[in-house]
Amino acid sequence: MLKRLVVGRPFRSDRLQHTLLPKRIALPVFASDALSSVAYAPDEILLTLSVAGGAAVVFSPWIALAVAVVMITVVASYRQNVHAYPSGGGDYEVTTVNLGRKFGLAVGSALMVDYVLTVAVSTSSGIANIGSAIPFISTHKVVIAVVCVLVLTAANLRGLKESGTAFAIPTYAFMVAILGMVGVGLFRIFVLGQDVRAESAGFGLKAEHSYTGFAFFFLLLRGFSSGSAALTGVEAISNGVPAFKKPKSRNAATTLLLLGVLAITMLVGIVMLSRLTGVKIVDDPATQLTGAPANYEQKTVTAQLAHAVFAGFTPGFYVVAAVTAIILLLAANTAFNGFPVLGSILAQDRFLPRQLHTRGDRLAYSNGILFLAAFAIVLIVAFEANPTHLIQLYIVGVFVSFTLSQTGMLRHWNRLLRTERDPAVRRRMIRSRAINGFGACLTAIVLVIVLVTKFLAGAWIAIAAMAVIYALMVGIRKHYDRVARELVPPDERGVLPARNHAVVLVSQLHLPTLRAVQYARATRPDTLTAVTVNVDEADTRRLQNEWEERELPVPLTVIDSPFREITRPIIGYVQNLRRASPRDVVTVFIPEYVVGKWWEHLLHNQSALRIKARLLFEPGVMVTSVPWQLASTENKNLTRYDRRLKRGVVRGPQPGGTDGTEPGSADDLVLRK
Amino acid sequence: MLKRLVVGRPFRSDRLQHTLLPKRIALPVFASDALSSVAYAPDEILLTLSVAGGAAVVFSPWIALAVAVVMITVVASYRQNVHAYPSGGGDYEVTTVNLGRKFGLAVGSALMVDYVLTVAVSTSSGIANIGSAIPFISTHKVVIAVVCVLVLTAANLRGLKESGTAFAIPTYAFMVAILGMVGVGLFRIFVLGQDVRAESAGFGLKAEHSYTGFAFFFLLLRGFSSGSAALTGVEAISNGVPAFKKPKSRNAATTLLLLGVLAITMLVGIVMLSRLTGVKIVDDPATQLTGAPANYEQKTVTAQLAHAVFAGFTPGFYVVAAVTAIILLLAANTAFNGFPVLGSILAQDRFLPRQLHTRGDRLAYSNGILFLAAFAIVLIVAFEANPTHLIQLYIVGVFVSFTLSQTGMLRHWNRLLRTERDPAVRRRMIRSRAINGFGACLTAIVLVIVLVTKFLAGAWIAIAAMAVIYALMVGIRKHYDRVARELVPPDERGVLPARNHAVVLVSQLHLPTLRAVQYARATRPDTLTAVTVNVDEADTRRLQNEWEERELPVPLTVIDSPFREITRPIIGYVQNLRRASPRDVVTVFIPEYVVGKWWEHLLHNQSALRIKARLLFEPGVMVTSVPWQLASTENKNLTRYDRRLKRGVVRGPQPGGTDGTEPGSADDLVLRK
Repeated sequence: MLKRLVVGRPFRSDRLQHTLLPKRIALPVFASDALSSVAYAPDEILLTLSVAGGAAVVFSPWIALAVAVVMITVVASYRQNVHAYPSGGGDYEVTTVNLGRKFGLAVGSALMVDYVLTVAVSTSSGIANIGSAIPFISTHKVVIAVVCVLVLTAANLRGLKESGTAFAIPTYAFMVAILGMVGVGLFRIFVLGQDVRAESAGFGLKAEHSYTGFAFFFLLLRGFSSGSAALTGVEAISNGVPAFKKPKSRNAATTLLLLGVLAITMLVGIVMLSRLTGVKIVDDPATQLTGAPANYEQKTVTAQLAHAVFAGFTPGFYVVAAVTAIILLLAANTAFNGFPVLGSILAQDRFLPRQLHTRGDRLAYSNGILFLAAFAIVLIVAFEANPTHLIQLYIVGVFVSFTLSQTGMLRHWNRLLRTERDPAVRRRMIRSRAINGFGACLTAIVLVIVLVTKFLAGAWIAIAAMAVIYALMVGIRKHYDRVARELVPPDERGVLPARNHAVVLVSQLHLPTLRAVQYARATRPDTLTAVTVNVDEADTRRLQNEWEERELPVPLTVIDSPFREITRPIIGYVQNLRRASPRDVVTVFIPEYVVGKWWEHLLHNQSALRIKARLLFEPGVMVTSVPWQLASTENKNLTRYDRRLKRGVVRGPQPGGTDGTEPGSADDLVLRK
Repeated sequence: MLKRLVVGRPFRSDRLQHTLLPKRIALPVFASDALSSVAYAPDEILLTLSVAGGAAVVFSPWIALAVAVVMITVVASYRQNVHAYPSGGGDYEVTTVNLGRKFGLAVGSALMVDYVLTVAVSTSSGIANIGSAIPFISTHKVVIAVVCVLVLTAANLRGLKESGTAFAIPTYAFMVAILGMVGVGLFRIFVLGQDVRAESAGFGLKAEHSYTGFAFFFLLLRGFSSGSAALTGVEAISNGVPAFKKPKSRNAATTLLLLGVLAITMLVGIVMLSRLTGVKIVDDPATQLTGAPANYEQKTVTAQLAHAVFAGFTPGFYVVAAVTAIILLLAANTAFNGFPVLGSILAQDRFLPRQLHTRGDRLAYSNGILFLAAFAIVLIVAFEANPTHLIQLYIVGVFVSFTLSQTGMLRHWNRLLRTERDPAVRRRMIRSRAINGFGACLTAIVLVIVLVTKFLAGAWIAIAAMAVIYALMVGIRKHYDRVARELVPPDERGVLPARNHAVVLVSQLHLPTLRAVQYARATRPDTLTAVTVNVDEADTRRLQNEWEERELPVPLTVIDSPFREITRPIIGYVQNLRRASPRDVVTVFIPEYVVGKWWEHLLHNQSALRIKARLLFEPGVMVTSVPWQLASTENKNLTRYDRRLKRGVVRGPQPGGTDGTEPGSADDLVLRK
């Protein structure tokens, strides 16, 4: 019932179809993750540099430019991916094909960690942004962030498929808002010559200790690492090529270029403007800021800028905060699309449990969605929804997959060049190879910088998580392979068992027992015995007498059980039978009565269940339940549909009609030969 | 493993035998409960009266005498029970036989509530007594009381059977200690003329408000009710008659008399002595005592008396505290004998779940023991191990069963007198009837007094609990009766099913599937079909192709499942088969592979389990598991004994030898025809 309320009515499998997206819709759908990162990357740059006081913050525009260079390189590289692998397999496919399964798995684990962090970071950052406008949200940020994740989970379990326009409006609104804010700000400063000052412009920065020489350089590198968070999500388009309108690859490449230009413009614009307006952002306002009021609540960079630029026009400030929060939640939502699909691909390759490959009621990969949500919530709670602390874990995974994917592309071009003879095609390939090669080198360098500067700050957690996931996936694959090897059917048809020994378990002489005996006889076994375990001498004697009085055509064997156990003597008896004739089969018939209400279970021994479970471990033993339904089960063997039918809530399906969308209705049962 | 450590190795059923007890051992075994109540009854009398200041406490010896009169009556009455019902069925049997099932059940529920309270009250009081000597115990009383109950539980689960001497020593020590203390005290006061003063003799009592007229009389009645706690446990001997040496009834009656004399002497002695030494006991020392030091820790009456009487001789004080605590724990232990036996009798009469009638590994009724312990712990924690508060619940149940049992005896004698003609026997019967009649009246009056004076103080909880247990037992009996009626076998042998339709469920074509198909063919059904559910179109097509390639002699039917469910389409298919030929039987063969390690379950769909569970509710459908054991189960199908055998830890059983005390050894398997 609760499940139906949250998830809704199930969908038929044939509702699964893809609508192709034009560029103007594809951009917002795939770009929300990448674009939204400009909402927190500038904060991270400024915040990292501010520990050295004012001296390092001066370099923030240069760091933004460095990030922009990496962004250009990555965009250029992925444009090659999009052309070479239009199937949408993404980094996992590219790496597996070109560098082999091990590196593919490494990318897989990196991406899984990444998706979880995307949800955690984007949600936390979204809450921080809207919290800059509404203090209540800021004080309850953990709870509200968790609620947001739960809402996204429910929406995705329901099979949120209306992504197109739902994504387009807020994403375009975000672009307009941010670019408009930057534009208005620059216009006011340079054209109108006004003095636009952020609320934190007057505060001083207290340096923790003086950074000189190498330490200062290391700090700049850390700032650069933090700023690289702006690159997360760029690879999304390369996974989505099949969703584009034709020519797919070309449209995807163009969209990617557009995304790069927009992201760079916004990032550099925000960092420039925050320098011009004197924005100060620190990790701990209470100790690092001088001149701030006692109860100063630090706002995000975008919030401070909006406040300063739209000074005197509050709606402007609220709009920027709102659209920023919304696009960040959309970014979190992209992980809800990406993770389950990746999980299902990995499950299909038998690296993850098969359950991740089954579609739920609404055709979504429900198990993957639930996994993602659970891990993201753990992170949000553990890091108290603090985006700055979460980001320390974030960037490693992104750059692991960037580097490996680009290296894979290098191999890809090398392989193709070995056979390609057409000079024009070769030229194009060599150019692509150069781009991917440069991309591989640059992202590798960034990866090293990130590792060195962030390892102790939190990156080690992400790396440990990747290692665990990697080991888990290898282990799961090994298990599945072993099982598959064991289950390969031999070439011959298999022989019929030599003889079949039937054993009917008896505790009392009642209807279920009689029925089991009759049914066992009907299967015409080679031998047939009724067996009872003697736990209570008096009961057993009574049973024996009743058995004789009825003159049943089956002998009753009594097994003694000096320790009053039931399961073990039966197992022993069956094992003895098997030992006597190993090529034969033993069939154990267990009469059970089935009760309908949960509390009725408490009133009956569950020995049948235990015996059945234990007998499954005996080779060459078949276990047959002969159930007897008590009156209390009467309603149980009706489906919910049948019950509603009975009550007259729904009308019965028309013979031959096909309008039955209710599961379990008779016309679902189409038989084919 | 943990279970073995706590409970020990199982016992063989033939170890169950009764040793008969001589009177000198029977007295301590059955009397510890009744005697131990003199450890708290005087406290309760004084404490209840002290709310009216000093004026009411003066009456405490008279109240003790009134309790003694009731005690004499009850003892005299039960001496008649013992002669009339030597079978040891106790109050439940007497009431059921003479007043019918309903009153019998009322006594049953009263006794069950009582046993739980015996454990809670005795343990709490024991802790309070030893806590008077050791302050550490007094500050951690709840935890320590719970630990005591757990230790008693473990001991009883192990089948604590050495009760005879283990009970005799502390019980006799308690008698000697209490009677010695009273004797020494009276000797010092009246013979030596010394001034023996309790530590609380100098304190004043603050009256809460003045009690006059009826209120004062009501207070005295409340004191009497509290003092009646001394009567709990008197009925124990009437349950234990079969354990006495011959002549059983006579010995039991004599022991009962002895018990009565001892209990009355001790009770009256303690109350007298506490009046003479000026003992003050109140519910809340901080508000009700004047002149007491700020951090005054109130001791129990026995502790105060021991302190005063043995002044200057500390070992005396500690010995009294220790033996009092020990006999109270022994009293708690008697409930661990009584409750499970009562539960097993009620379970045999099908008023309680059958599980209460099965003996555990060590021949004890383990489930009853666990129930008792759980409820007692709940009470101890809820009432913070405060005996005064627990006693408010206690006495109702005792007097309900006293009154009903004595009324039952009245009927018993009336019935016998209707047929008896021998004048000597008739005279004896009339005398017994008079005694039981007087007993019934007096205990009924006390029951009314207890109900009136204690209802709001806590007795309502006990009454509510009895009502709930009563209703539960009636419901359980109704359920068992209904099931039994449904399962009565008809007079004819039952007919063989007309035809048998076999259905083999197939998901993939692997070894387990092939084996299930071959096995199904071997049972020679009338029709045989393999059935697969089409969840994934591609998988289904692959399966169909493989099926054709193998040229299996069984047709493969595909059921469509537009909502990707597995269970429901199969149920629908089976229901259709049944509908087509209702007199036939459908056998569903489910190939399953069995994994050995718990985590392996996570990696495989549990659909087989779900389908099996659901099919049990379909009438006329047999469910056969065709298990395939994977290599990881290898060690699972060995019993612990087999594994030890393999490792050479135990030697194999000698052929024909009978020394195998290890469960599961081959010679447990004695077959009889």
